[in-house]
Amino acid sequence: MAAKMTGPELMDFLETVFPQVKDDFEIEEVTDMRVRVRMKIAERHLRPGGTVSGPSMFALADCAVYMAVLAMIGPEALAVTTNCSMDFMRKPAARTDLIAECRLLKLGRVLAVGDVLIYSEGGEAPVARASMTYSVPPR
Amino acid sequence: MAAKMTGPELMDFLETVFPQVKDDFEIEEVTDMRVRVRMKIAERHLRPGGTVSGPSMFALADCAVYMAVLAMIGPEALAVTTNCSMDFMRKPAARTDLIAECRLLKLGRVLAVGDVLIYSEGGEAPVARASMTYSVPPR
Amino acid sequence: MAAKMTGPELMDFLETVFPQVKDDFEIEEVTDMRVRVRMKIAERHLRPGGTVSGPSMFALADCAVYMAVLAMIGPEALAVTTNCSMDFMRKPAARTDLIAECRLLKLGRVLAVGDVLIYSEGGEAPVARASMTYSVPPR
Amino acid sequence: MAAKMTGPELMDFLETVFPQVKDDFEIEEVTDMRVRVRMKIAERHLRPGGTVSGPSMFALADCAVYMAVLAMIGPEALAVTTNCSMDFMRKPAARTDLIAECRLLKLGRVLAVGDVLIYSEGGEAPVARASMTYSVPPR
Repeated sequence: MAAKMTGPELMDFLETVFPQVKDDFEIEEVTDMRVRVRMKIAERHLRPGGTVSGPSMFALADCAVYMAVLAMIGPEALAVTTNCSMDFMRKPAARTDLIAECRLLKLGRVLAVGDVLIYSEGGEAPVARASMTYSVPPR
Repeated sequence: MAAKMTGPELMDFLETVFPQVKDDFEIEEVTDMRVRVRMKIAERHLRPGGTVSGPSMFALADCAVYMAVLAMIGPEALAVTTNCSMDFMRKPAARTDLIAECRLLKLGRVLAVGDVLIYSEGGEAPVARASMTYSVPPR
Repeated sequence: MAAKMTGPELMDFLETVFPQVKDDFEIEEVTDMRVRVRMKIAERHLRPGGTVSGPSMFALADCAVYMAVLAMIGPEALAVTTNCSMDFMRKPAARTDLIAECRLLKLGRVLAVGDVLIYSEGGEAPVARASMTYSVPPR
Repeated sequence: MAAKMTGPELMDFLETVFPQVKDDFEIEEVTDMRVRVRMKIAERHLRPGGTVSGPSMFALADCAVYMAVLAMIGPEALAVTTNCSMDFMRKPAARTDLIAECRLLKLGRVLAVGDVLIYSEGGEAPVARASMTYSVPPR
């Protein structure tokens, strides 16, 4: 299956439907069933000590799977997260952008499942992993 | 096992170690192995349409389990989330506070496990459920 | 919502569609959105030392949610598990039946979500918790 | 980090500590932080229609992560599963062996996290994914 939306098209759509997060994320690469998303870390994402908060990592994983789903099915605001599981494995580097590598494992008629590894930029070992299920509208 | 910290003590501790979230949460009740936490919904927690965002619900569940753990072990900033699973089951009511009912299922030597049901205030059916594992420091 | 099937009706259905597990389980109680299921522990469920294996606990949680769903929607072999998360919190008592207390948190048009606590019979603290999502056929 | 045990050594250990599952699994490949495990499907793993049961897939994922952990830390019967999340994405092919590709994402002082993709032999799309956390004994 081939992607139906490019990175810039995804960013435009994100800015339209979720204007409050448009400054947090940058789509770095879109290929079939895969996206790479950067989270531009700012004060609001941090915990004392400069480490990125859990909710920020959740937001990144959620956004990455959403972008991967939209890339494949086209602009569709109605896809919603129904399930997530995450493992927080290492402390992210202080004040460093996060990079999410997302792969769609399933894009079904009603459910899509994506897997995400999150890295501190430049780091080799993932700081977190996530799996997200999206309910996708009939198409 | 009896709780070692009261709701006001937990709030004081939260304000000291996580000042950036102190306005989001209110501890409503603390009993042995259980807490009830309110999320005071503001613009920053919403998605278009007024519904509460997924990352906000994650933040609430995470905070509730953290508060439940601290209530039992005493003030300890070093407890960290290692795993979470969440099911997002219903759309939260628009612009309505969320209430998290948390129960600790395990408080072990190194790991604590808490279960959370999240409700829109006044709602009967849970909008989300979460399980969180915390790694707790030696005590 | 009221249950459409009784415990004996559920057992009959289980024996028909999953004859290979009929000797493992006993439905102890069925009420609206809740079931209690016993796993009759035999040699085949054990690990060395007499403790119940992880796959056996998974099988029990899975069966309990399936029974809870069927109790509400009627006999329907086509419901399938799409997601599970489990926490294994304590070692089950040796050679002791397990009891699963299951509550359906959501019974939607396409997805059902159930929560399960598993106890060694007579034990006060749960040995495991599980959440299971079932995809339910159109009805 | 380099693996400390070979595939045959892992099989010998498995047969000693879990004799009841020795006929179910075959270690196909062991490399640093990765293993590939085959589940030799027999009648006892099947549901009506010939499809592999959920508990069998859980058992395979659990075994694969256990083998990956042991390969890295050496023979250690005391590692135990503390958490699992699984997505069941496609129906496995009837009466066909399953192949689990496991990668350890973290091997810490007290916790190890592994990710598993399960395929029907010869299939291109994964039938299930799993993440497992093991509690590892002090070493």
